[in-house]
Amino acid sequence: MAVNVAVVGATGAVGEEFLRILESRKFPIHELRLLASKRSASKKMKFCGVDYTVQELTRQSFQGIKIALFSAGANISREYVPYAIESGAICVDNSSAFRMDDDVPLVVPEVNPQEIARHYGVIANPNCSTIQMVVALKPIHDVAGIKRIVVSTYQAVSGAGLKAVDELQKETSSILEGKRDFKRSLFPHQIAFNVLPQIPQSNAFLSDGYTSEEMKMVNETKKIMGDNSIGVTATTVRVPVIRSHSESVNVETKKKITAREVKDLLLKAPGVTVIDDPGNQLYPLATDAAGKDDVFVGRIREDKSIENGINLWIVSDNLRKGAALNAVQIAEKLLEKL
Amino acid sequence: MAVNVAVVGATGAVGEEFLRILESRKFPIHELRLLASKRSASKKMKFCGVDYTVQELTRQSFQGIKIALFSAGANISREYVPYAIESGAICVDNSSAFRMDDDVPLVVPEVNPQEIARHYGVIANPNCSTIQMVVALKPIHDVAGIKRIVVSTYQAVSGAGLKAVDELQKETSSILEGKRDFKRSLFPHQIAFNVLPQIPQSNAFLSDGYTSEEMKMVNETKKIMGDNSIGVTATTVRVPVIRSHSESVNVETKKKITAREVKDLLLKAPGVTVIDDPGNQLYPLATDAAGKDDVFVGRIREDKSIENGINLWIVSDNLRKGAALNAVQIAEKLLEKL
Repeated sequence: MAVNVAVVGATGAVGEEFLRILESRKFPIHELRLLASKRSASKKMKFCGVDYTVQELTRQSFQGIKIALFSAGANISREYVPYAIESGAICVDNSSAFRMDDDVPLVVPEVNPQEIARHYGVIANPNCSTIQMVVALKPIHDVAGIKRIVVSTYQAVSGAGLKAVDELQKETSSILEGKRDFKRSLFPHQIAFNVLPQIPQSNAFLSDGYTSEEMKMVNETKKIMGDNSIGVTATTVRVPVIRSHSESVNVETKKKITAREVKDLLLKAPGVTVIDDPGNQLYPLATDAAGKDDVFVGRIREDKSIENGINLWIVSDNLRKGAALNAVQIAEKLLEKL
Repeated sequence: MAVNVAVVGATGAVGEEFLRILESRKFPIHELRLLASKRSASKKMKFCGVDYTVQELTRQSFQGIKIALFSAGANISREYVPYAIESGAICVDNSSAFRMDDDVPLVVPEVNPQEIARHYGVIANPNCSTIQMVVALKPIHDVAGIKRIVVSTYQAVSGAGLKAVDELQKETSSILEGKRDFKRSLFPHQIAFNVLPQIPQSNAFLSDGYTSEEMKMVNETKKIMGDNSIGVTATTVRVPVIRSHSESVNVETKKKITAREVKDLLLKAPGVTVIDDPGNQLYPLATDAAGKDDVFVGRIREDKSIENGINLWIVSDNLRKGAALNAVQIAEKLLEKL
């Protein structure tokens, strides 16, 4: 059954990816409506070879829409999701607006697809850095019970949007040309040839010194895994990479599990590709994961500093599985029930 | 008392830094002898405004030398340190050749200066990523007892030498110009706009999946701290940064210590500068630490996933405190006893 689909924030980094993924997965679309701010309205975007004109997002934008994919920031979601629901749409929201609401499912289809059923009109798509981690850790949790996670991230600039990619490239060029007067507009410090232990780039810090990105990883992991007893601590860091987040993840389990057993579990896990051949210097890389769907896991090692410890290196395309792809997968599950 | 000093590996990234540091700290040098491989011999290098000609390293190079600073790799150290000792020199060796030998002191002057006294002619300089971590953690260990460390690193390419810096810059330029045919000679994969969970760039992996760099952090930390009960697990990662290593460090202590107490301890710790003002988006940065002497610590937070946990972000210049500076500081301590 083909349905009417709206994409809110169509001209952004995730918006562009939505179109590519809806097209490549042959999502059954009857009518496609591309929505964005006034500034971006009347822009043309191609979908399945046809030009679409972006329309300005208004309260009336959702008439006749069955599925609305939101990726235009938390403020836009908070304002417009209620109108979309009122119009009869089911919203899959990529922002943080509703993620921690008790009555909103927060879903990664490989982990907790059963949650989708209890939605009241909006299903939240988790944070990019959380999604790839839980896809890789769920099979371990099911078998050995995860007690605690210590994660440090290496996050691509595209997580901060297309402007951030542009800023990294321009700043890098300036430095290579020996210019020192580069004016940055987005990042608080030089991002080229540097790493910034701050995400997002503004209003990041909470009173206890953690960033909102770090607390997303803590809180969303517990909600998606459905287990508040899992301890999580995170340090989230922006690196000068265009696309794909990498994560160094240390896991303590309740039951002993060997590196070999983790590898075997992940080899058959949905949405996971294991790349773990140190002898041939093969492990997941941001550049290799870009444009791909899976979560890539390697460097699987037993951590001998505790009784039941495992280290993993988890990489995935932040705009695909970390955003647009996961949301479209949720929409596909919704379609099955329509 | 001015002494005769030899620098082995003078033309390398650390060698260049040795000259800058000996000069700026007014190390009392009577005669300076610059040594390198045949390939680099006859090259000129400036020290205190005077041109020095680099000489080829031979077994006879150390006659009359009191202090020999080695930074030319483990094979050169293994071969030539014995001749230097036989000639009456005391060697400070920046390679991994002797670090884990029981009868060789492994020294960070802020942490275990007392170890220097027991040398038989060679004192080992620890690995760069270990040095900055133990400088920041020693004051915490003294007060609260460190039980376990989980560290993930963000290491600059200059740790792999001047050729690595050149490769990063050339590869970055190629990519920005849209070329995809860049021939790399050093790194196993693209390092520009990427992160590699492998250090060093060749022969890195041990049979258990850890890299030699990771095991240096595990073993050297215990030896320098003089406490084999400290659990350490590490994931070491190369990032496209020219200079300064950054580290995300999670610490579990035996006694409770608050973030405020850690900050107060580190504010008065030798060799440490605290930069921890999230409200103003201030924290240690690789670009800021480059060319500076101290170990910079920030993002100090209590880790609520365990009873006694602390997260820190530790940054230092890998060629200075991570290599040349620490070695010169050891040599200064040696001079005091001469």
